Amino acid sequence: MTTRIVELRRGILKKNDELAAHLRERYAAAGVLVFNLVSSPGTGKTAFLERTLRELRARGTQAAALVGDLETDNDARRLAASGAPVRQINTHGICHLDAEMIGKHLDEWQEIALPALDMLFIENVGNLVCPSSYDLGERIRVVLLSVTEGEDKPLKYPTMFNSADAAVITKVDIAEPCGFDRELALKNIHEVRPGIPVFETSAKTGAGFATWLDFLAQQR
Amino acid sequence: MTTRIVELRRGILKKNDELAAHLRERYAAAGVLVFNLVSSPGTGKTAFLERTLRELRARGTQAAALVGDLETDNDARRLAASGAPVRQINTHGICHLDAEMIGKHLDEWQEIALPALDMLFIENVGNLVCPSSYDLGERIRVVLLSVTEGEDKPLKYPTMFNSADAAVITKVDIAEPCGFDRELALKNIHEVRPGIPVFETSAKTGAGFATWLDFLAQQR
Repeated sequence: MTTRIVELRRGILKKNDELAAHLRERYAAAGVLVFNLVSSPGTGKTAFLERTLRELRARGTQAAALVGDLETDNDARRLAASGAPVRQINTHGICHLDAEMIGKHLDEWQEIALPALDMLFIENVGNLVCPSSYDLGERIRVVLLSVTEGEDKPLKYPTMFNSADAAVITKVDIAEPCGFDRELALKNIHEVRPGIPVFETSAKTGAGFATWLDFLAQQR
Repeated sequence: MTTRIVELRRGILKKNDELAAHLRERYAAAGVLVFNLVSSPGTGKTAFLERTLRELRARGTQAAALVGDLETDNDARRLAASGAPVRQINTHGICHLDAEMIGKHLDEWQEIALPALDMLFIENVGNLVCPSSYDLGERIRVVLLSVTEGEDKPLKYPTMFNSADAAVITKVDIAEPCGFDRELALKNIHEVRPGIPVFETSAKTGAGFATWLDFLAQQR
């Protein structure tokens, strides 16, 4: 049975890679920069993204978001507070987004036209394992890690951190009560993914967002 | 391809259920009470379990732990500080433990004899989705949620909370700086899983452990 699973898994990932390649062409043709945000549940992806969308809007950047969850549209409602167009994807038990879901939702999303956007953010299902294997055609994969989670997460989930293009540390406002060891976290991130840019942020206080938004602007 | 995946998935889960039933008989024959601890990465399963093992030891209860991670033996080393026998399982990319892994590791674990144990704790891979489908033969599944994670996790990961027999809220010592809404969290847990016992704990201060240990003693 193991051989069949490995073969089938390869087939699924190959099909996903093909669909992701099409998405990548579609994003490029539309001139939209696409991000895929991945993290553990509870890291604060939604709060981080809501503030990012709001601050981009204030800078005149056109951004939208797709957000994946197993159930509920809580995150879409929270993100919509930013004023940006947002669409919820419910995976109903699937532990990650895939390229087919993204393509389908972009086709059905009447409210936005990709060429009118500067940036599209995809907030993945909260999971540090499964989303690492599924390319969504994004140009930049962002892995988030909160100060509450333990500094060894990069070592324990190396594929996720190794496949990321940028890392964001969230909730730095509560680093002290959490006993967060900043040097150790940075060391572990860079051990798994040497040279990756790391942004230390708080969606509550706004710490680190100026640097993060400058990075976004540079990527365009 | 979807039909083949669904069929194969059913086959895998059926095989796991059979192996889990054997494990359940094996645990019963040995008179050992088995727990399966599941949560998001960073909830604090290891700190919670380390303190549980240490306090059980002080009460004269014989307990051991199996701990699953994709990579590293960090958690086994942390748990070993309790003085209890501990064995690390590395899944190398698999997002959950399964009954076959547990059986294999119990067979190979020379240092313990199941009949000599009162309790065995299995700390699953940090993931709020995949472990929910894999029965490990445990009698009690414990889902953990930290005050840092957001009160809506039960609604967003209903299968995990719905399949649990007990819920533990961790890190209550930092509830205030995290702005944790206790009433909302309890409401959401009970909405998904009515009547489930909930333990509010801090592995740092020891809050809630007396109640939790009394619960463990009652389950024997």
